Amino acid sequence: MRISELATESGVPVHTLKYYLREGLLMPGLAQSRTRADYGPEHLDRVRLVRALVEHGGVGIAGVHRIVEALDSPPPSPHEVLGVAHGALVGATEEDAPEPDADVREFVARLGWGVEDCQPIVQLLADAVLRARAAGIPLPDEDLERYALAMRAAAEVDLEVAGRARSTEEAMRIVVLGTVLVDPVLLALRRLAQTAESAARI
Amino acid sequence: MRISELATESGVPVHTLKYYLREGLLMPGLAQSRTRADYGPEHLDRVRLVRALVEHGGVGIAGVHRIVEALDSPPPSPHEVLGVAHGALVGATEEDAPEPDADVREFVARLGWGVEDCQPIVQLLADAVLRARAAGIPLPDEDLERYALAMRAAAEVDLEVAGRARSTEEAMRIVVLGTVLVDPVLLALRRLAQTAESAARI
Repeated sequence: MRISELATESGVPVHTLKYYLREGLLMPGLAQSRTRADYGPEHLDRVRLVRALVEHGGVGIAGVHRIVEALDSPPPSPHEVLGVAHGALVGATEEDAPEPDADVREFVARLGWGVEDCQPIVQLLADAVLRARAAGIPLPDEDLERYALAMRAAAEVDLEVAGRARSTEEAMRIVVLGTVLVDPVLLALRRLAQTAESAARI
Repeated sequence: MRISELATESGVPVHTLKYYLREGLLMPGLAQSRTRADYGPEHLDRVRLVRALVEHGGVGIAGVHRIVEALDSPPPSPHEVLGVAHGALVGATEEDAPEPDADVREFVARLGWGVEDCQPIVQLLADAVLRARAAGIPLPDEDLERYALAMRAAAEVDLEVAGRARSTEEAMRIVVLGTVLVDPVLLALRRLAQTAESAARI
């Protein structure tokens, strides 16, 4: 398809597509002439990925670059792509990181998940926990642990979804996009669950 | 304490406190003279609540007003405060609501939680699900249901935390603040859980 059709299919304007091309976020189409190139379904997938990361994930251009590079030259395991994606996403949300908190790091180690060295995410967790505690939400370790188990159940679904993909490339795309786009699904479900749980306790 | 001490204790500058007073978000202190008033711990709690809602919850002044009014003239049950808080929070995050989706509403009804009439949250969920699906995350009902069960487990903790409060007013404050401030805790835990789950599957 031509770039104008790619714009129609993806809902992203031509001038934005040209910007993605210049930035190297979208791979060039197959040249048909000096001024015309042909784009396929892989370009459409890529445009949707970039748009989702920028618009809904709040990921900056540098973060999208890192994710796109990892997808273009896949590391040996999808596990590493997850690390790259998390790093980029964390970089996008963490502007004013205070000192990391030893208590929270020890809590993560006690979980026994082997993830206490995932520095940027542990720090993201520590920031969030400290903010909640400073505002008067006690969040003792027992509560945190139960929250962690709930999110582990959600993560099982995340990884199964990726496992059902038809190719490694698709699996990685689903993991990256799912990290960004399933967050709001989970938060909406949390609010519904609070309402249900509150009604059940009256 | 004087307003300057309230500023020091809360970390919120005096001019912002005066703005909260003018807007009715902070109740007046006990007048000591024509230019001096005395503030107590209830004022400090209120300032922390307002700041958390505005800064970390992205709640607009109108939303904070609705929450503060519900706290000042408590409805018969904390359950209703939860509804008010959710409405205010949803209003703050939902700017471009597309058409609600019948499939998602039916999914919520099938959950059997009795929350299919919580219109703003169901719509928030429908928007999030449609965005994820449009970007290529399949999200079949079976996946959504497992995510819902995971969040129900998290909501059990939420309501237990509120139940441990020493007063109804404190319980309501914890529910409202917890909705805003525990979201990022859960999302950070989700990323750690994904990493752990991914490593476990290699």
